[in-house]
Amino acid sequence: MKKVIINGTIVTASDTYKADVCIENGVITQIGTSLSTEGAEVIDAKGNYLFPGAIDPHTHLDMPFGGTVTKDDYETGTIAAAFGGTTTIIDFCLTSKGKPLQSSIDTWHAKSKDKAVIDYGFHLQIVEGSDEVLSELPKVVENEGITSFKVFMAYKNVFQADDETLFKTLLAGKELGALVMVHAENGDVIDYLVKKALAEGNTEPIYHALTRPPEAEGEATGRAATLTALAESQLYVVHVSCAEAARKIAEARSNGVDIWGETCPQYLVLDQTYLEKPDFEGAKYVWSPPLREKWNQEVLWNALKSGTLQTIGSDQCSFDFDGQKTLGKDDFSAIPNGGPIIEDRVSILFSEGVKKGRISLNQFVDLTSTRAAKLFGLYPKKGTIAVGADADIVIFDPNVERVISAETHHMAVDYNAFEGIQVIGEPVSVLSRGEFVILDKQFVGKAGAGQYLKRGKYGEEIVLEEVSSVVS
Amino acid sequence: MKKVIINGTIVTASDTYKADVCIENGVITQIGTSLSTEGAEVIDAKGNYLFPGAIDPHTHLDMPFGGTVTKDDYETGTIAAAFGGTTTIIDFCLTSKGKPLQSSIDTWHAKSKDKAVIDYGFHLQIVEGSDEVLSELPKVVENEGITSFKVFMAYKNVFQADDETLFKTLLAGKELGALVMVHAENGDVIDYLVKKALAEGNTEPIYHALTRPPEAEGEATGRAATLTALAESQLYVVHVSCAEAARKIAEARSNGVDIWGETCPQYLVLDQTYLEKPDFEGAKYVWSPPLREKWNQEVLWNALKSGTLQTIGSDQCSFDFDGQKTLGKDDFSAIPNGGPIIEDRVSILFSEGVKKGRISLNQFVDLTSTRAAKLFGLYPKKGTIAVGADADIVIFDPNVERVISAETHHMAVDYNAFEGIQVIGEPVSVLSRGEFVILDKQFVGKAGAGQYLKRGKYGEEIVLEEVSSVVS
Amino acid sequence: MKKVIINGTIVTASDTYKADVCIENGVITQIGTSLSTEGAEVIDAKGNYLFPGAIDPHTHLDMPFGGTVTKDDYETGTIAAAFGGTTTIIDFCLTSKGKPLQSSIDTWHAKSKDKAVIDYGFHLQIVEGSDEVLSELPKVVENEGITSFKVFMAYKNVFQADDETLFKTLLAGKELGALVMVHAENGDVIDYLVKKALAEGNTEPIYHALTRPPEAEGEATGRAATLTALAESQLYVVHVSCAEAARKIAEARSNGVDIWGETCPQYLVLDQTYLEKPDFEGAKYVWSPPLREKWNQEVLWNALKSGTLQTIGSDQCSFDFDGQKTLGKDDFSAIPNGGPIIEDRVSILFSEGVKKGRISLNQFVDLTSTRAAKLFGLYPKKGTIAVGADADIVIFDPNVERVISAETHHMAVDYNAFEGIQVIGEPVSVLSRGEFVILDKQFVGKAGAGQYLKRGKYGEEIVLEEVSSVVS
Amino acid sequence: MKKVIINGTIVTASDTYKADVCIENGVITQIGTSLSTEGAEVIDAKGNYLFPGAIDPHTHLDMPFGGTVTKDDYETGTIAAAFGGTTTIIDFCLTSKGKPLQSSIDTWHAKSKDKAVIDYGFHLQIVEGSDEVLSELPKVVENEGITSFKVFMAYKNVFQADDETLFKTLLAGKELGALVMVHAENGDVIDYLVKKALAEGNTEPIYHALTRPPEAEGEATGRAATLTALAESQLYVVHVSCAEAARKIAEARSNGVDIWGETCPQYLVLDQTYLEKPDFEGAKYVWSPPLREKWNQEVLWNALKSGTLQTIGSDQCSFDFDGQKTLGKDDFSAIPNGGPIIEDRVSILFSEGVKKGRISLNQFVDLTSTRAAKLFGLYPKKGTIAVGADADIVIFDPNVERVISAETHHMAVDYNAFEGIQVIGEPVSVLSRGEFVILDKQFVGKAGAGQYLKRGKYGEEIVLEEVSSVVS
Repeated sequence: MKKVIINGTIVTASDTYKADVCIENGVITQIGTSLSTEGAEVIDAKGNYLFPGAIDPHTHLDMPFGGTVTKDDYETGTIAAAFGGTTTIIDFCLTSKGKPLQSSIDTWHAKSKDKAVIDYGFHLQIVEGSDEVLSELPKVVENEGITSFKVFMAYKNVFQADDETLFKTLLAGKELGALVMVHAENGDVIDYLVKKALAEGNTEPIYHALTRPPEAEGEATGRAATLTALAESQLYVVHVSCAEAARKIAEARSNGVDIWGETCPQYLVLDQTYLEKPDFEGAKYVWSPPLREKWNQEVLWNALKSGTLQTIGSDQCSFDFDGQKTLGKDDFSAIPNGGPIIEDRVSILFSEGVKKGRISLNQFVDLTSTRAAKLFGLYPKKGTIAVGADADIVIFDPNVERVISAETHHMAVDYNAFEGIQVIGEPVSVLSRGEFVILDKQFVGKAGAGQYLKRGKYGEEIVLEEVSSVVS
Repeated sequence: MKKVIINGTIVTASDTYKADVCIENGVITQIGTSLSTEGAEVIDAKGNYLFPGAIDPHTHLDMPFGGTVTKDDYETGTIAAAFGGTTTIIDFCLTSKGKPLQSSIDTWHAKSKDKAVIDYGFHLQIVEGSDEVLSELPKVVENEGITSFKVFMAYKNVFQADDETLFKTLLAGKELGALVMVHAENGDVIDYLVKKALAEGNTEPIYHALTRPPEAEGEATGRAATLTALAESQLYVVHVSCAEAARKIAEARSNGVDIWGETCPQYLVLDQTYLEKPDFEGAKYVWSPPLREKWNQEVLWNALKSGTLQTIGSDQCSFDFDGQKTLGKDDFSAIPNGGPIIEDRVSILFSEGVKKGRISLNQFVDLTSTRAAKLFGLYPKKGTIAVGADADIVIFDPNVERVISAETHHMAVDYNAFEGIQVIGEPVSVLSRGEFVILDKQFVGKAGAGQYLKRGKYGEEIVLEEVSSVVS
Repeated sequence: MKKVIINGTIVTASDTYKADVCIENGVITQIGTSLSTEGAEVIDAKGNYLFPGAIDPHTHLDMPFGGTVTKDDYETGTIAAAFGGTTTIIDFCLTSKGKPLQSSIDTWHAKSKDKAVIDYGFHLQIVEGSDEVLSELPKVVENEGITSFKVFMAYKNVFQADDETLFKTLLAGKELGALVMVHAENGDVIDYLVKKALAEGNTEPIYHALTRPPEAEGEATGRAATLTALAESQLYVVHVSCAEAARKIAEARSNGVDIWGETCPQYLVLDQTYLEKPDFEGAKYVWSPPLREKWNQEVLWNALKSGTLQTIGSDQCSFDFDGQKTLGKDDFSAIPNGGPIIEDRVSILFSEGVKKGRISLNQFVDLTSTRAAKLFGLYPKKGTIAVGADADIVIFDPNVERVISAETHHMAVDYNAFEGIQVIGEPVSVLSRGEFVILDKQFVGKAGAGQYLKRGKYGEEIVLEEVSSVVS
Repeated sequence: MKKVIINGTIVTASDTYKADVCIENGVITQIGTSLSTEGAEVIDAKGNYLFPGAIDPHTHLDMPFGGTVTKDDYETGTIAAAFGGTTTIIDFCLTSKGKPLQSSIDTWHAKSKDKAVIDYGFHLQIVEGSDEVLSELPKVVENEGITSFKVFMAYKNVFQADDETLFKTLLAGKELGALVMVHAENGDVIDYLVKKALAEGNTEPIYHALTRPPEAEGEATGRAATLTALAESQLYVVHVSCAEAARKIAEARSNGVDIWGETCPQYLVLDQTYLEKPDFEGAKYVWSPPLREKWNQEVLWNALKSGTLQTIGSDQCSFDFDGQKTLGKDDFSAIPNGGPIIEDRVSILFSEGVKKGRISLNQFVDLTSTRAAKLFGLYPKKGTIAVGADADIVIFDPNVERVISAETHHMAVDYNAFEGIQVIGEPVSVLSRGEFVILDKQFVGKAGAGQYLKRGKYGEEIVLEEVSSVVS
């Protein structure tokens, strides 16, 4: 059935204007003043913004880690995402040495099918640059539409790949049209520092931060940038947390390297002192890279404003405090890494970014939706409010105030990393391909409604040789 | 009369999609598939892009310089601009020490009224930070809608202002919501080097470049950035020509300084060797800053791509070779500075930028139109194709090839700086507020149809506190 | 009479070793083990270092400033210097616009003759780059042996010179073999900020620091470095106080610019909070550039260690607290700038630098003596302990502890900037050209014994084409 | 027997002066004018410089590599070194995984004993950071006086160590007072590029350079610097060849990291085009890192001048062209890496550095001798001309001109890397501990006269707490 949203203020990555939006068959067909509402369901968005559905390019749902599994799976995780205004996620499909990539992908399909309430895609982890792995990649790109590969430079003896693997992955990415993503921390150094801290009896959560110094992130970021330049490939640095890493990205970009950077809300509003909370509460804030000294926040905001960083991911990876985080009660290295961020990612950025004048409204849309769509082959189907695009739309009240709390959130975990923080602005209703998932702040979607997204190749939107190819 | 443009591919600073555009009363009212064309003039844009009319933020029309006057006035200059796809210019209103600013503004109104075929605004030069000048600025902002001030750090004993003037102007800009623009070259050093070169008998055009070294531009750019940081104000660096200056802007932006950079097509495709052309032809390429060594071009393209520079101006300032440039036959310092660029600015950027894969199509629109509209208080009336915006639209054929030449250009001068360069892409038709100025590559506008634009304050679009204020 | 110093440990800018030193006719004639002491006065330096007499390249003795005159003149000032281990000073000869340079030099000769107890030379201030001034410089170099020119980029309407003057001075320095020195702060910005602070009623000493931000020093330092590069000349940046300035020097040096930097003890151990001392005591710490935030100290120590900065000056410019500093009781800008540092310069550097492991013993000698001798044309007569050099020697006890205090110092002022600071190490005896000036911590010299030093040209020691020219 | 060298001009790292030098029992006992020559052998050094014997901190004598062995062993290699003015070498003792360090050290003692004509020490390679290796290090330091450890970041599957090994070595160095040395190139990237080039049929010598890009060296240098900062240890980067690496060192030094850099004569005067010489002659210039584009030379000279790099090593590693270099006739990766530089290292630096005005005479001495002595625990016995030091003295004629050639050199190989280059300056006579090794350009030494040097700990000279400890 046709829908017309009236009286809203549309915001895209470049534009802000008042207009009605007409939706037919899940797609936006008209934008204009005084659109005909004949035979249409009319939604009045007076006083609200219309944002393109946010895209979370960095989630870990139903993910095993350190002998336990994240609390949020594809159902609870995507419901929480939708509440927060997110209509697409791209999750990380983990792989194992010696196992065919396809079998891991199949596992991830099994986790998500019949569960996701919004659309989703997968990034694929590359653990080793073996001939077997490399030879499987073309099929993965063609058959699965997976056009982003993730390499870890940390987590020694677990996920960590060596420079040879990273370099080969970059070359494969270049050849196949895939964007290579890195977790950039020097795992060798961290591994040593962790062992040393534990040997010295330093077991509290704060040592998680102290054994992962910002220099280790800056170094790995610079190394990955250099390898990208040598491979003439493209790179996306996930969860940039500190000045050292941001500076390396800025330098590489100035030199023409095709490198992109993501940060996360937690690095923008929380800091290292959270790990020192008493009663082991610091464990709630253990993720990697760790929270940094507070002055880094301003550096990251400047990096977002000036274009050094281009996206915001949640790095959603949620574990209960009781029973999961507490696994590391006597050993910080046993605390499952990660936190519940998927639901509040957009709100935090709107409230702390737009409302506080740090970024513009259009930058906010670019950071939370459009840029990710373009980088990960989802554009123009996703990432914008424009004729022809999927009607993934967030009706957002920019003036409502609320306090973030585990008591009211929809994630399956027993705490919220932003507990007690007051934010301004909240999604009222959220549509996925023209259907309401959230309506007047109530969940009205259904598990399994979300579709798996085969994604396009990297860079294809960059230059459009022929007009006819643009939107077909 | 209502117009509907069908079959075109709309491009904005963030989006690319196929849709029809409906225009009523000079404004875009609808964008959609299969719009009703009842009672409308239908324009078929099949195979063409629809760009928002380009904005040239840097022109000097009917400008006196060194005892002569630019060849292009507001009529020939704006006609040429329109042919090139530009529908708005912002020209520099020059002022003099001891003269009321208003009288200079009146002079500029007199030059432009009844002549311009497209819309236009003025930047205002500040030559001295006297109490008289500073006290006149609030009126200029309120009454004239002039929200950008220009300070020259070069042209000693002519335009050059000292640091005190620049600093006071920055503080005034902050208070009044105006963007301060600088011509950043160290005039003291240049003045000395010019005199020395002439004293040594070095009179040829190439000495224009050799006496204005890139270090002098880098130094002044860094100085202006520092003063901006100290004033907590905003700065726009015009005509960035070299790596040294681009680097200073990148550094300042990383540190959170609110600084923007413009380059010009000439710096992207021409280089210092042009000044060595025989038979005094080098004089055609004399402007300030001068053309640089060729390797700077790649640095500038990278700066555009990575966001260190955000706009493209023409620095249009045209003088005939015969009779004007030749004034400097025996003394390069007597060559009138400037060149005819207004007509080919957009084509050069499309052909060399988009077609060669250096920037994306959306970046091209941002660089030539949207960003300037936002920085200079013209947005959302100008700078985009969106419902509610002025119907300033360029129907652009992205595949046609042509060779730039003075024989076919529409500027009033006897040479073209890009003579012989082949470009791909050309405007077919151009609308200003819904009326054709160029139709099928013919001029159909009229002198005086262009309106003077009172502009909004700097930064007002950045944070929209209330939805209701967005587009009212 | 021949003297032999036995049992001491000689320290030069590169070497540390135990040996006896024989002095004849004021010159070092032999260094060795078991030197013959026949007919010689024997001085036992057991347990002590022998340093080359320190050179203070930055003093203002008997200098008028803001309607008053420094408390220390050439007699009290040089006596205090000698107590501190300094055997040579280079003082700044101030000049005035429109007045012949020679008349200013004559004034300075009059101030110093018959008063100085140690040797001394003059730097010459250049206030304007007029033809008259420039034409007088060759004579100054030849007749007076003044081979260093000082330009102020700050003190607007008093000492401040424009970039043209600085550039011309750099070119003159290059031609004549003179080293150009700059006080690098942006005077235009500072002048505005001072007036604004006063207009707002902010009159306390701390506003001296707040109106002279480090960015203003960094900017001017970078500008001076750029002008030096363009002039292909040489530059010495006096009293570097902050990270911004040090970074600019490091960058320029990496690019091959012939630039040197001096810092002062006050910037290494005091900080901006001193200006907030109650009861107007902050005024004691008012000099320009101002004391900075404490974290800059580590940056400066690193700069000394790594070679970015090469010398330590005192910037001695002493005013009584009572009656002089208090002139600015109601207006910080009326506080005479400067402090009493000449006596403790060497001790502070030894104690805080060498004893705390921040610099090596040889670096200490280079920083306090040798480098200045080489840069300012005094080497090899001054600046080292080597055969053929003047016997300017400090016998230094490295283990004695003392507390710096106005009660025990020998400067003519009523306070000491380092009051209460405990230092390790102190000169026991000091020889100037073989004669004791200080003997067992007592002054035994006499006014007028110090000789005026005609200095050699810059860079002459750098390349020695012929061996025969080395020491003749 | 006592010797007195008269009429020479002594040059140290800081001083230049004319004086006689008296030598007794192999040690310098007096320096002075008109020294008594009674009972002494008198050597007239009129017109000559006296330099401290040069120290070559980077040699590979009698070293196996790729199935062959360097042509020069400890006898021919040290004779050639002595002809060039070098009186001390520090050679690299290679080790193997799983083998006790002591057994490798014993092998190196066997290679050198009874062969070396000048004094020598060993650096020790660390191939893995195993507990066995780490536990053996204290003994190595104490018993063998080996206070420098070498880690390779390149030569994958041969010498290459991972970051964990490097980090552990740095921590060991800190604890034991040893300086860690790195060969800084990213071996993973290089290994891939080499295989790829060969697979594509690119087998010529130039591909050695093209598969080892400067970015790979810059990256590894920055990584090593970061690890050093995190370990709070000390690092010495061997054979810095390019701008990228020099910049990383400069940055780290500015930040207070205790990092030092060495370059080699070949990088200062040869460039990448040498690898393109026809008839496989390019193989003569194959070493790692490879020769770079010519513009890097100026960067390296600036780095020497400004103090970013502090030493000059030869990286002597000589292979005959015929029979050894030719092993790689069909595969550049099979060309033995290295060249014959030990003999001309000092001459090249004097002629190209001092004579061309790029560095001062004192810097030359510091670079070729003093700094290495201090960094590697040889000072003050070696590295200077001062009372108490070993009489390792070079009598150097600074004006003689000669052309370097394999026909006249004393190394055992069939070519010279500097063939045909004209240099000014040459050692006339060379003394080792007071005995002539070279006399009037003839070898007069004998195999086995050279002594093995147990070296002091790193940093011990930096701070001298007690005078009595200085020279004992």
